[in-house]
Amino acid sequence: MAVNVNTRVDAQRWVFLSKDAPDPGNKDLLGGKGAGLAQMTQAGLPVPPAFTITTEACNAYQESNDFPPGMWEQAVEALREIEAETGKRLGDAADPLLVSVRSGAKFSMPGMMDTVLNLGLNDETVQGLARQTNNERFAWDAYRRFIQMFGRIVMGVSGEKLDHVFDAAKKAAGTEQDTDLTAEQLRAVAQELKQTVEREAGRPFPTDVMEQLALAIKAVFGSWMGKRAVDYRNEVHIAHDLGTAVNVVAMVFGNMGDDSGTGVAFTRNPSTGEKKLFGEFLPNAQGEDVVAGIRTPIVISRMQEVWPEVYAEFQAIADTLEATYKDVQDLEFTVERGKLYMLQTRNAKRTGRAAVVTAVQMVDEGILSREDALKRVDPTHVQQLLVPQFDEAARKTAGKPLGKGLAASPGAAVGKLVFDPDRAEQMTLDGESVILARKETSPEDFHGMARAKGILTSRGGMTSHAAVVARQMGKPCIAGAEEIDIDVANRRLTAGGVTLYEGDWASMDAALGEVYAGRIPTVEPDIERDRELATLLGWADDVRTLGVHANADTPGEATRARALGAVGIGLCRTEHMFRDEGRLEHVRDVILNALDAKRARKEATPDASLQEARERYEAGLRTLGEFQVGDFYGILKAMDGLPVIIRLIDPPLHEFLPSRERLMVEVALADAAGRSGTDLDEMRLELEAVERFHEQNPMLGLRGCRLGILFPEIVEMQVRAIALAAARLKSEGLDPRPKIMIPLVGTRGEMVMERTLLERVVKDVLAAEGSDVAYKIGTMIELPRACMVADQIAESAEFFSFGTNDLTQTTFGYSRDDAEGKFLGEYVESGILPINPFETLDRDGVAELMKIAIEKGRKARSGLEIGICGEHGGDPASVQTCHELGLNYVSCSPGRVPIARLAAAHAALGHVPADR
Amino acid sequence: MAVNVNTRVDAQRWVFLSKDAPDPGNKDLLGGKGAGLAQMTQAGLPVPPAFTITTEACNAYQESNDFPPGMWEQAVEALREIEAETGKRLGDAADPLLVSVRSGAKFSMPGMMDTVLNLGLNDETVQGLARQTNNERFAWDAYRRFIQMFGRIVMGVSGEKLDHVFDAAKKAAGTEQDTDLTAEQLRAVAQELKQTVEREAGRPFPTDVMEQLALAIKAVFGSWMGKRAVDYRNEVHIAHDLGTAVNVVAMVFGNMGDDSGTGVAFTRNPSTGEKKLFGEFLPNAQGEDVVAGIRTPIVISRMQEVWPEVYAEFQAIADTLEATYKDVQDLEFTVERGKLYMLQTRNAKRTGRAAVVTAVQMVDEGILSREDALKRVDPTHVQQLLVPQFDEAARKTAGKPLGKGLAASPGAAVGKLVFDPDRAEQMTLDGESVILARKETSPEDFHGMARAKGILTSRGGMTSHAAVVARQMGKPCIAGAEEIDIDVANRRLTAGGVTLYEGDWASMDAALGEVYAGRIPTVEPDIERDRELATLLGWADDVRTLGVHANADTPGEATRARALGAVGIGLCRTEHMFRDEGRLEHVRDVILNALDAKRARKEATPDASLQEARERYEAGLRTLGEFQVGDFYGILKAMDGLPVIIRLIDPPLHEFLPSRERLMVEVALADAAGRSGTDLDEMRLELEAVERFHEQNPMLGLRGCRLGILFPEIVEMQVRAIALAAARLKSEGLDPRPKIMIPLVGTRGEMVMERTLLERVVKDVLAAEGSDVAYKIGTMIELPRACMVADQIAESAEFFSFGTNDLTQTTFGYSRDDAEGKFLGEYVESGILPINPFETLDRDGVAELMKIAIEKGRKARSGLEIGICGEHGGDPASVQTCHELGLNYVSCSPGRVPIARLAAAHAALGHVPADR
Repeated sequence: MAVNVNTRVDAQRWVFLSKDAPDPGNKDLLGGKGAGLAQMTQAGLPVPPAFTITTEACNAYQESNDFPPGMWEQAVEALREIEAETGKRLGDAADPLLVSVRSGAKFSMPGMMDTVLNLGLNDETVQGLARQTNNERFAWDAYRRFIQMFGRIVMGVSGEKLDHVFDAAKKAAGTEQDTDLTAEQLRAVAQELKQTVEREAGRPFPTDVMEQLALAIKAVFGSWMGKRAVDYRNEVHIAHDLGTAVNVVAMVFGNMGDDSGTGVAFTRNPSTGEKKLFGEFLPNAQGEDVVAGIRTPIVISRMQEVWPEVYAEFQAIADTLEATYKDVQDLEFTVERGKLYMLQTRNAKRTGRAAVVTAVQMVDEGILSREDALKRVDPTHVQQLLVPQFDEAARKTAGKPLGKGLAASPGAAVGKLVFDPDRAEQMTLDGESVILARKETSPEDFHGMARAKGILTSRGGMTSHAAVVARQMGKPCIAGAEEIDIDVANRRLTAGGVTLYEGDWASMDAALGEVYAGRIPTVEPDIERDRELATLLGWADDVRTLGVHANADTPGEATRARALGAVGIGLCRTEHMFRDEGRLEHVRDVILNALDAKRARKEATPDASLQEARERYEAGLRTLGEFQVGDFYGILKAMDGLPVIIRLIDPPLHEFLPSRERLMVEVALADAAGRSGTDLDEMRLELEAVERFHEQNPMLGLRGCRLGILFPEIVEMQVRAIALAAARLKSEGLDPRPKIMIPLVGTRGEMVMERTLLERVVKDVLAAEGSDVAYKIGTMIELPRACMVADQIAESAEFFSFGTNDLTQTTFGYSRDDAEGKFLGEYVESGILPINPFETLDRDGVAELMKIAIEKGRKARSGLEIGICGEHGGDPASVQTCHELGLNYVSCSPGRVPIARLAAAHAALGHVPADR
Repeated sequence: MAVNVNTRVDAQRWVFLSKDAPDPGNKDLLGGKGAGLAQMTQAGLPVPPAFTITTEACNAYQESNDFPPGMWEQAVEALREIEAETGKRLGDAADPLLVSVRSGAKFSMPGMMDTVLNLGLNDETVQGLARQTNNERFAWDAYRRFIQMFGRIVMGVSGEKLDHVFDAAKKAAGTEQDTDLTAEQLRAVAQELKQTVEREAGRPFPTDVMEQLALAIKAVFGSWMGKRAVDYRNEVHIAHDLGTAVNVVAMVFGNMGDDSGTGVAFTRNPSTGEKKLFGEFLPNAQGEDVVAGIRTPIVISRMQEVWPEVYAEFQAIADTLEATYKDVQDLEFTVERGKLYMLQTRNAKRTGRAAVVTAVQMVDEGILSREDALKRVDPTHVQQLLVPQFDEAARKTAGKPLGKGLAASPGAAVGKLVFDPDRAEQMTLDGESVILARKETSPEDFHGMARAKGILTSRGGMTSHAAVVARQMGKPCIAGAEEIDIDVANRRLTAGGVTLYEGDWASMDAALGEVYAGRIPTVEPDIERDRELATLLGWADDVRTLGVHANADTPGEATRARALGAVGIGLCRTEHMFRDEGRLEHVRDVILNALDAKRARKEATPDASLQEARERYEAGLRTLGEFQVGDFYGILKAMDGLPVIIRLIDPPLHEFLPSRERLMVEVALADAAGRSGTDLDEMRLELEAVERFHEQNPMLGLRGCRLGILFPEIVEMQVRAIALAAARLKSEGLDPRPKIMIPLVGTRGEMVMERTLLERVVKDVLAAEGSDVAYKIGTMIELPRACMVADQIAESAEFFSFGTNDLTQTTFGYSRDDAEGKFLGEYVESGILPINPFETLDRDGVAELMKIAIEKGRKARSGLEIGICGEHGGDPASVQTCHELGLNYVSCSPGRVPIARLAAAHAALGHVPADR
């Protein structure tokens, strides 16, 4: 027996044998795959001998661009141990050991990292392999696979060029199947591949097996900082300094004949959660054939018929592993001449549906506690349950689908077709929705997949790259739609006699695997009646301390939010109501006459035009006021007995006006054409009025409470409508609970002035109506100054609601509209920002300001109720921050209420989901 | 003797007699005028008997709109005391006492508050007065004056209407002089005035003298919250809750014949500081005649000839008062039949010149210590010394002045003529510079005077309303320019045969009293050679702890700043250099090609158009780089041996591009005209490029270090130029001290990335040049987030400089450009903001954030150098705040360096100037 590397203490240990790694579950050190191998090995399961080079070695490699001192020597010692165990030697011409070199980070990054199989082959050992297996064809096939993989991954030769050599040979042989090639033909392929590698890489293919090993390990390390891995980690928010481990595993072969095969399987259905082995196997194949989706595999239940004993052993192992990990497992296995080998186990990625169903199942089965079940479900899982579905009525009129494929990841998607990921990225940056159609996807496509609304492939199965990645992202995906001919080169697809080109609209229902031409309207899913989700969220409600409210502007939204578990409306935006049909003209009348009306009020004897402006202004407000009574009546009624925070008018007024640029051009054109007349005069007047409201930086201009202070009549109209609506409901025996919110307050003076006005109006109305509705007056905290003087503001505010969209804008000095298109992407990509602060609350800056505001606010008014109503309220990481800050509640869009409920429970449990 | 009101302790004391007020110097309680009367009375000077109703009574009145309980009774008791002292009684038909009722706040508000003279007259007492004085004409003149004043001020009748009655009577009598009217004619005038008052006010003129007194006191109280008083206090930053006292003083008469008169005088010349009585008197006149500027008075030195004894007594009193108050005094007096009465003494308002000269004189005279002398000079005084003067060469070519007047307040002004204050306000809001021309000014004109560049009147003397107010504001004023016919009704002036209309340009040199047609260029004053100022600022430098640097972009500005005492450049804005002649085209080449050049660098084989863009981008940068070396060489040379902080490019790039709106209109017009060709194509391309840089909110967009991160080549070019310039100077034996400042940093990542880039470039250049210039790299702190993470930023920043313009914008969420035109005025006016935060640093919000930044920054890097380079650096109140925050220095525009030096000394002395 060789020296056991694991007992050396005089140097850092970079390498561990699976069979005796002292902490086999340590994913931080061994990566997920390495930990799985070690745990399975040490549990006595059938696993090929293996060793793992640690993530620490990877990080050391990134710094020095070389193996850290001692690592290589430890790896060689570990290799000798595997050799001893298998009785073979790497590079032994007579009885060669072959190994796979696989990456394996702490978090699974499907297809992102590189793997080299069959390492140890060269012109000599291939002969030994042929003798060993008594199968020359097998040996040469293994060799040519190895050269292709090593050439591409380690030596950087274009995969297409190498595939082309192989494809040409098949063509020459008059076949399309790999298996039809003879040993001799494969030998020729191998030689030509080596020459191609040498020509393309500018150096010969290495024949020294130890050099092969060293280069392969370096390639895995190098792939950690490769573009696609970095892109992926940025997308799913995995830190770049985790590093990847490298696993060196003795090869077993699934392609040694019909008693061999390879497969992947989940212990339960990762799409629906059904408790039944779910997966696929390919007889006489190596693992890469399954994952790459090149040959369509056979469902795993069929294995029971083919190899009943193997199947039984596999089922038993699956049960054991699930019980051990207390989670659904994702397994890779190979059968070599009838013997089962486990190659990998890991917690299974799954759809939201499956996550919720299995978590609830496992509580029923006694495997999990309720709290652990909550931890098993990530907020992203719940989010997936919220993806839209087709409007069934519209689907019926949409005719027959173009074609069908596998329902790889559920949800409906509508978008313009694109056929390559760069174009997908570009078009989405231009504001388009796209569906990405590919023959099959590879890790290079990731950036386009991340942007697309849906993904469609014509090849590959339920565990193909496209399917796995889409499920993880919660994005609709139809895979293996073989009826659809996807022609990437010509940017078109054809199915059912119809051809669609890039830019044409398409719709897909990935729950059914159906693809349609054109746009089919989508609707929100009916999650209210989801029994398992209701059960899980009920447990979440028992645990969480943070309240969950919703942002809703209409009775319909409010009703939905309530059904989804919201216990109040945290933000009702009144200005959205202004844009409703039949109102905009009155809104414009109010705005365009506001300044003159103000002058008219100030002057003792205003002239006729000012007087007219004042009359139009007041008439416009009266009309709007009538509409608003109905608006508020509806939403307060929908939330009967629950609080509704109504925010007074907030956006810059020019948002309601015609476009300044358009008017400028139109007036210039009319002038140039020598036109005259009242039309032109009116346009000119309109332009003049629009110019008066034009601002350099509207985000920092006349908006929020500044409007109410300059034009108090607008706010008066709104408050009167709120009070009237509430009084009416009360008289009908209901329990309206309006809370009036003043936006964009930055000074004590604004709060005092607005509060005084509001109270006067409400009291007047209630007195006139003989009503006694209880109400509260509070403010948005959305400016850094508001945070700094929160004590002054709290003197006259009964509640605070953080408007973190604006607060993020002003704290960072970013205009969201400008930053996201111009530099925020580059900031996140280059690591200047760990995350887009508009998606997840910035802890160092924005949250610190919030902390000051909370302390000062509650000091001035003990028990001050504080919430958040920015979009962050529905982001799980931000919910965590809100919990830590001690907020009373978060408020988010109705559809995100379930996510927030779960995230709030996680926060209360101190649980940070692993996908973050 | 009547009950002494001052000894009552059982109720709040609202009223104090001048002769025994227990704390005669208490201006807070008695107001300035009341305190002066009490102090003079108690010092034994000849003062008519008087009592003062306190400012507290005024504030109580504002709350309840009525006299506070007990006040009236105390006032009546005090009146009885005056009656006892004078032996007359108010309302006594036989021997009536007359009183004046005068307002008097803590701070003098010239002409702002109302005064009623001769109170106590009615149809009966006027007869008594005639008998008392044996002068029927005098009595009726006093009565008609009283009716006019009381009618206007107390009863709200239009002054014009009342003047008209009097003017008509003069016209009917065929005279222009008041003094030509007979007693009988004046009696008729009085009767008609009473009828006019009754008709206009809708109630009869009160005959009850106690009712007159009560109403007059209420009118004074009411005037405190009158529009003009509120406007004035807003302008000069006096709190609205100070209140005004009311002084009731026994009347003495300067209009009882040629042995009587009235006047005002300063103990030293308030314009030049010359140590000599300066003032005017009017024989046979009441005080209002002097202040209103209706009759042109006689210089006070002539009094020596007319009334030598009175003059000697007056000079002695002046010396006594100056020694008592240790300050120049502003005196009002009346001579009644040869007897001198002092009516008022107060610290004199004066020009900046006079303030500096008298402060230095008084140290020489042993009256003041150096520290007290510093306290006697306000920063606004120094500011006045910095007002521009005509370019002498240009004046010579400007021809003869149109006319001349009194040099009432020095300085040169250029602007469009306007003839009424509303128009002046409107035009300045539209961005125009104006000169306000009026026959004479009144408090109602204040808002226009405050906006005008200069003030011109054709009537009134050196102590007229226009002169006093202009001197206080440090604004050029020519008063009493009788050669100039100012025709307000027709909006024109005529002089020297020339007529100028509203909107025509005019120039005035108020130091010489000369008015010119057209625009004469102005230059900065030569304050560097001002001996007294140098002396005073030398004392300031001895006292202050805060450094004073300057913001300068050119060698010329830097040289001037250095001459004015700046010990470094706190901000050199490099982008201003980009706009210089011959550079803008290269700047545009760089910007318009920047995005394509970036793509070209990213792509392996960019297409020809991208490649060309890259070449144009790089060529443009090379050319700019050559210019910049010269720029930096110049400024570093000018500041040899002193630090120069150079800020890298900061503004949004569209600022250098053609107007988007103009291009849109031009392209639309060309399209409509059916034009085609390369011109149009190019315009279209240009518009497209401009659109790519267009932003919704450029203030919050792609600017500051964000530019340097997206387009590192621009920053590299600048830093290379800085290093090259410094290396060259060093090789010439000079001592350049460049400090490179990165703008708009908000994250640790930005600072690290930029610092790394900058250091590499500087080191490369210095190594190549074989130079070892010392340099520092730091950052602007101008975002709330930068304050919150200042510790992270300080890890790689060697200095901080607060950019308080931007920090104020983001902290408040105000775009300065938008806010100042749209709502900031209303905010300050209504008291929501105590002050415009862009003028004076906001203590509650912005300064609190700065405090956090300073604490965190110095915690991370002890001894971190921190300054401020926003415009606040030259604002005295903000300098005070910076001193308290513990900054190392302030940096301001060169011309404000002397102000900052004095303000820093005041801060070190813990002195807050009284005018704040």
